[in-house]
Amino acid sequence: MGGDYGPEVTIPASLDRLKNNPDLKLILVGDEAVIAQHLAQNRDEYRERLTIKHASQCVAMDESPAKALKNKKDSSMRIAINLVHDGYADACVSAGNTGALMATARFVLKMIPGIDRPAIISTLPTIYGHTHALDLGANVDCTAEHLFQFAVMGAELVKAVENIENPRVGLLNIGEEDVKGNEQVKAAAKLLENSALNYIGYVEGDSLNAGNIKVDLIVVDGFVGNVALKSIEGAAKMIGTALKDAFSKNSLTKLAGLIVYPVLKSFRKRIDPRLYNGASFLGLRGLVIKSHGGADILAFRTAVHLAEIEIKKDVIRKISEQVEKTLAMRETA
Amino acid sequence: MGGDYGPEVTIPASLDRLKNNPDLKLILVGDEAVIAQHLAQNRDEYRERLTIKHASQCVAMDESPAKALKNKKDSSMRIAINLVHDGYADACVSAGNTGALMATARFVLKMIPGIDRPAIISTLPTIYGHTHALDLGANVDCTAEHLFQFAVMGAELVKAVENIENPRVGLLNIGEEDVKGNEQVKAAAKLLENSALNYIGYVEGDSLNAGNIKVDLIVVDGFVGNVALKSIEGAAKMIGTALKDAFSKNSLTKLAGLIVYPVLKSFRKRIDPRLYNGASFLGLRGLVIKSHGGADILAFRTAVHLAEIEIKKDVIRKISEQVEKTLAMRETA
Repeated sequence: MGGDYGPEVTIPASLDRLKNNPDLKLILVGDEAVIAQHLAQNRDEYRERLTIKHASQCVAMDESPAKALKNKKDSSMRIAINLVHDGYADACVSAGNTGALMATARFVLKMIPGIDRPAIISTLPTIYGHTHALDLGANVDCTAEHLFQFAVMGAELVKAVENIENPRVGLLNIGEEDVKGNEQVKAAAKLLENSALNYIGYVEGDSLNAGNIKVDLIVVDGFVGNVALKSIEGAAKMIGTALKDAFSKNSLTKLAGLIVYPVLKSFRKRIDPRLYNGASFLGLRGLVIKSHGGADILAFRTAVHLAEIEIKKDVIRKISEQVEKTLAMRETA
Repeated sequence: MGGDYGPEVTIPASLDRLKNNPDLKLILVGDEAVIAQHLAQNRDEYRERLTIKHASQCVAMDESPAKALKNKKDSSMRIAINLVHDGYADACVSAGNTGALMATARFVLKMIPGIDRPAIISTLPTIYGHTHALDLGANVDCTAEHLFQFAVMGAELVKAVENIENPRVGLLNIGEEDVKGNEQVKAAAKLLENSALNYIGYVEGDSLNAGNIKVDLIVVDGFVGNVALKSIEGAAKMIGTALKDAFSKNSLTKLAGLIVYPVLKSFRKRIDPRLYNGASFLGLRGLVIKSHGGADILAFRTAVHLAEIEIKKDVIRKISEQVEKTLAMRETA
């Protein structure tokens, strides 16, 4: 029910994934009448792999997380997370209110023992392929220990999803020299240097999209990570607007735009943020994926697909085991 | 002498500004023989407005600020800042080592009384025009008081340079709601709300390039601001590369690129970072402008032009007076 467009987007995207993955089973959680109406004849077609779970409430996009948690016990969000908790679902995908989703997920699913705070991880396109970054906004005022925990969890996810043995982990800083950075970053660097992780050192903001060195995972405080992510969104929006404006100036530029349409389309495809939609909450005892609220069908489809991949790769179990192993190593050290 | 290209860039850019501003006088500081060689016959042409001040040393781009300060007392950077201190120059423009420039400027020029730390301010292009942001990397671990001081200084600069009576000041945060943010940001918001500044509240990372609301000055901790700035650089680089690659794919796309060249050129011009090059160090008792190290002639010319504007608008004096006034208001409060 969530996101800026609700079932208009989430249902066609779900149907598309059902069509493309014959192993996928989906439970659509929300207002049954609304869902049934959007499904129409597709309901019969996917009878065996598609169920509806009714929810009488819905968390608003601007509702406070605390209020949603307290007053919306029959919301689609809460019920979907309950399904994960109770083992009826392997993952919950939502385009709804991020804060409420995080608070509800944390309350219902609980944390992996040894992890203090959940973190948000996502994939970002780069010049040479893509990279992963966390935390993108779940936490502010992270300590060095938090950053270290994020690195352990994120590296395990990258390992599983990308089939990389030793993901290269970088720590986001304002320079690559040892003397640079704030206190948390300097202390986190020490923890990472002394860990079993493949820590490559400091990386700068441009490495999120255009780093000269290969880095598979970028670790950052949630405040800084969120600002960086939104700064990138703003830059892309400005550049996209300028490009559109240049081609819409007059009938001649419009004609030019038509001529080069296939080229612009292939350009757009390569950096299309919709193909990178979906952020996983790490640190919880269950899989929750957050789609961008403004996601369209293509973008929401990407988020559902991400859930399928992370379920198949058994990411949550692997992270839990790795965290336990890391804790045990510390105790014996 | 500084930057990635040295006099090859700085001298043609300087000559171009001399040509365009008949009131401008420049002192080129560095190795006299090298400068003379690059100036060639232009030296005579601008005889009355162009002088060379010899410096036997040069600060390397990767030199530690402490070492540069200690061992490079006859560097072009040090001498240029001395000229500002001694009243022979109204501003110093450098494409050199940022850390060394900041440390030297702070040591030689000293702080404006009432300001704890210098901050770096720059202009950023937005969809609707441009905005200003500080601190972009001089400080990490800023307190609320530091952020407040940055706002007072930045607002005065924007007022002078843009001829705006009450610049709209936003505080960079990870959401617009009151509950969002880290401790420093929340405390800084209180200081700004109770000030005489035209404080409009929290703004998010995308407002640096694409905000929906008009904001003239964005205040941010130097760590976060630097990461945001470099993230934007990375995003722009990735998008630019993808666009270039799309048009270079084969002879057909190359032909298409030729056809739409004027359109792409007008697009590029609107967001060209070289037209926004130049960051001012605020909080010092003298004007120092830092150009991007990788600046080309056009970009360095922009930085010199920025110095001309800030000198004409008497920015340093206005900031000093405003800081004094703000301090006096606090004492009587």
